Amino acid sequence: MVVAQTTGRDHVATDRRTAILEGAARLIARRGVRGLRVEELAAEAGVSAALVYYHFKDRAGILLRTLEFISDRAERYTAGHGDHTGPTRHGGELERSFLLELQDLPEVRENSIAWGELRASAVFDPVLRRGLAEAGAAWAREVAELLGATHPAVSATARAASAERLTALLEGLSMRWLSGVLPLENARKLIAEAIAVEAGRLDDPRR
Amino acid sequence: MVVAQTTGRDHVATDRRTAILEGAARLIARRGVRGLRVEELAAEAGVSAALVYYHFKDRAGILLRTLEFISDRAERYTAGHGDHTGPTRHGGELERSFLLELQDLPEVRENSIAWGELRASAVFDPVLRRGLAEAGAAWAREVAELLGATHPAVSATARAASAERLTALLEGLSMRWLSGVLPLENARKLIAEAIAVEAGRLDDPRR
Repeated sequence: MVVAQTTGRDHVATDRRTAILEGAARLIARRGVRGLRVEELAAEAGVSAALVYYHFKDRAGILLRTLEFISDRAERYTAGHGDHTGPTRHGGELERSFLLELQDLPEVRENSIAWGELRASAVFDPVLRRGLAEAGAAWAREVAELLGATHPAVSATARAASAERLTALLEGLSMRWLSGVLPLENARKLIAEAIAVEAGRLDDPRR
Repeated sequence: MVVAQTTGRDHVATDRRTAILEGAARLIARRGVRGLRVEELAAEAGVSAALVYYHFKDRAGILLRTLEFISDRAERYTAGHGDHTGPTRHGGELERSFLLELQDLPEVRENSIAWGELRASAVFDPVLRRGLAEAGAAWAREVAELLGATHPAVSATARAASAERLTALLEGLSMRWLSGVLPLENARKLIAEAIAVEAGRLDDPRR
């Protein structure tokens, strides 16, 4: 019974921690990282400010854990469930996962705005730098692996360069879409073509 | 004499206007758009807050004119003076101008941080949207023209798509560089390769 009680308390703690991270992602997507105040986050998540500090120590802790939370969530919705993107022509798995990042769904929009905002804020906030470097590197490695599945003969260096370019381009296009400068359909078309262009390069024997 | 006096006053007005815009770019690069206050900008430029309002009407006016100022400045330092980038292999004029955007010089760094920050803020600030759409479209047109000089037979649509991708990628890589996540040399190498990859695609008869 003691074990069951502990597990019950753990569940509550996990739920509250998740509620705080969901609240942080929502607030960052609504007004940006620099508008994020702990008191407001506590109100958004329906918990006390003390509990926010208990779970995340300080503002830096909140931002770094929110970054992880957003990365995990993106990984979940790009893993294939809820695919509204239709069939793909070139990039297969890679194109599918990238197009799932460019969908006009509230979750995707919120997640992408928050990610872009954390990325942009890192220029001013060195705390975010390490977290972003790790999350970005993990993402680029996944993309390089997907390229490795279709281009096993290509060097790891060439695949890593393609992966870095494609992820940076997705971020650039995503920001243009989210700020209303580039229509979503154009962004999707441009990234699908970019995957084809990079794949064509990896296939090129003169490379 | 009256004419000369008027011209003198116009010069002073232009100098002060420029000082305000330089100050705005500096402040945005230092702490971001959202930290920009008119009183602080006035102090930075050595003028009164009233003069800032006189020249730019309101905060939106300041941001839009600063965006133009930054675009013009980037156009100046990518036009060839002060080229520290060494010889180029593939993209010629286009590669040269892109590499001039990725230099560890105070002016380039400040300008790129301010541009990236205005771009990121547009997600939250619709006022910036139109200004960014115009400045971004003008930049993409220039890049498409440079691609047209080397690939005159390629359709305008294909060149416009390449230009949109290359400018979005440069922004994405620039943000990674400026937030300390990607070394400058890697960013330069990746963009030079991207130009070669896109050019290869434009040369491909199967395209």
